Amino acid sequence: MPLSEFSLIDRYFAAQGLQRADVALGIGDDCALLLPPPDQQLVVTLDTLVADVHFFAGADPEGIGHKALAVNLSDLAAMGATPAWATLALTLPEADENWLKRFCRGLFALADRYGVQLVGGDTTHGPATVITIQAHGFVPPGQALRRDGAKPGDGIYVTGTPGDAGLALAAAYGKTTVGAAYRAYIQTRLERPEPRIAQGLALRGVASAAIDISDGLAQDLGHLLERSSAGARLEVDQLPLSSALTASLDRDAAIFTALASGDDYELCFTVPPERTAQLEALATDWDCCCTRIGVIAAESGLRLVRADGSTFHLERLGYDHFG
Amino acid sequence: MPLSEFSLIDRYFAAQGLQRADVALGIGDDCALLLPPPDQQLVVTLDTLVADVHFFAGADPEGIGHKALAVNLSDLAAMGATPAWATLALTLPEADENWLKRFCRGLFALADRYGVQLVGGDTTHGPATVITIQAHGFVPPGQALRRDGAKPGDGIYVTGTPGDAGLALAAAYGKTTVGAAYRAYIQTRLERPEPRIAQGLALRGVASAAIDISDGLAQDLGHLLERSSAGARLEVDQLPLSSALTASLDRDAAIFTALASGDDYELCFTVPPERTAQLEALATDWDCCCTRIGVIAAESGLRLVRADGSTFHLERLGYDHFG
Repeated sequence: MPLSEFSLIDRYFAAQGLQRADVALGIGDDCALLLPPPDQQLVVTLDTLVADVHFFAGADPEGIGHKALAVNLSDLAAMGATPAWATLALTLPEADENWLKRFCRGLFALADRYGVQLVGGDTTHGPATVITIQAHGFVPPGQALRRDGAKPGDGIYVTGTPGDAGLALAAAYGKTTVGAAYRAYIQTRLERPEPRIAQGLALRGVASAAIDISDGLAQDLGHLLERSSAGARLEVDQLPLSSALTASLDRDAAIFTALASGDDYELCFTVPPERTAQLEALATDWDCCCTRIGVIAAESGLRLVRADGSTFHLERLGYDHFG
Repeated sequence: MPLSEFSLIDRYFAAQGLQRADVALGIGDDCALLLPPPDQQLVVTLDTLVADVHFFAGADPEGIGHKALAVNLSDLAAMGATPAWATLALTLPEADENWLKRFCRGLFALADRYGVQLVGGDTTHGPATVITIQAHGFVPPGQALRRDGAKPGDGIYVTGTPGDAGLALAAAYGKTTVGAAYRAYIQTRLERPEPRIAQGLALRGVASAAIDISDGLAQDLGHLLERSSAGARLEVDQLPLSSALTASLDRDAAIFTALASGDDYELCFTVPPERTAQLEALATDWDCCCTRIGVIAAESGLRLVRADGSTFHLERLGYDHFG
């Protein structure tokens, strides 16, 4: 059923979701007019998902809508920002109303949950589904969790259990089998990542640096180390591995998956020794685990160490789009 | 030559272009940190260009870079906004350094000219080139040029000479021939539209409504009328037609092209009678023509009228992405 660009936008996007008081003009004009709070910094991020690169083209559209926003909220979380607004650039091979309806259901359910209003969009025709969302949030000046603040001696922490999404992908590609008891869990971890917004907000004034894990813990921690001009010692036997991961893979493969597979959307962050107790108190309220996995070192490089002191060798660090 | 996502971003985007004082943190972290002026509204817009839908995949990459930003600055212009920041989501079938270098040259030349800093980006691999740029600007509260402010009796104006880009497209598709004297001109009009930023800023407090023309003058004026709950009488013989257009097409085809072809990126706006003299004084300083082409009416609908009072019939209104 053919739909014009304009009726698409009007019908599916303009009328949906919550309306924020700081939106003077939303979808429907040349631009949106927004009212950022005068005492805060504006935090912006964008991420693109391409069909059959970042998600399976035939996947549940509700999950695609969820994930397209979630990966951006995850970036806001990694910055310690409060989410506010989003825009959507949607390129589609066809105007499938049913797909759009379900995509929107996933997108707006998550947006509403985090108080995010969709304030702009552009729907275009193209050879494949390409989704770019830009998320906007706020943070008080000086309180953003940047990548460049880690100092030698700071503890390294991770939220949740990295590797679950990578396990789901490996299973989808037939590279491993996963017991029936774990399939729904890992599928949710792959298709419905939960942005760690509450954790990011709690880490303001506590974490010295933070990053969200999208391309694999080792690779993303590497970016944090590079920006902080530091190195790290990571205790691979401290990695929080889910039961799904340890039941499906041998120990080294499980560690490898937790370190090197993508799509986790957990936070990796560092905390100075004098704030460790504060972090531990905070984390007891979280709805996900929070695990100390290593320590920042002065000398550059990421050393992966087993409990017996031997080195863990990673053949491949994360996922590279053009690799 | 394969390049990783990260080296692409680092090499081509992070180090280029001007650095604004209101950017606390640009490309290279999870998010950008920006400092909007406390006394202004934030104006945001995004537009996607898809290869072989919105531009020829084999076109000059410098022109593609220019146009990808220009179409967004045109939306800011239509709102009367001062441009400030941009983000870029770039999906590419391959990492071609030469293409990227030339794309960036076009993009940053325009960005620098309008004081725009690129503050965020995401480069991904996909089956076709898809470019989404989001532009951010500022406008004092209450001074934005919205679509919904036109009142009966307001004059309707257009900048420049609409239809030139449509003529270039028609020539490219072999639907018409264009004399050698005009080919470079219409190609520039198609590939290097000049955002009417200065005009948009000048129209603050003068225009009652404005829109930029991307899908054809008649269709985009129709959007303005719809949002303003008004109609219009448009004098087709007052349309400012370029020499290229009148030399290449018969009069009715030239008028049709000016009304119904896309990619003009001119401004269409309305001015109340009491501010007509002010507009005319302003427009003498502009680097493009400014032409009165009609008047807003109370009764809905867009009436296209010839000088002799007869109706001009448009077979097709503009361009529809899913039409």
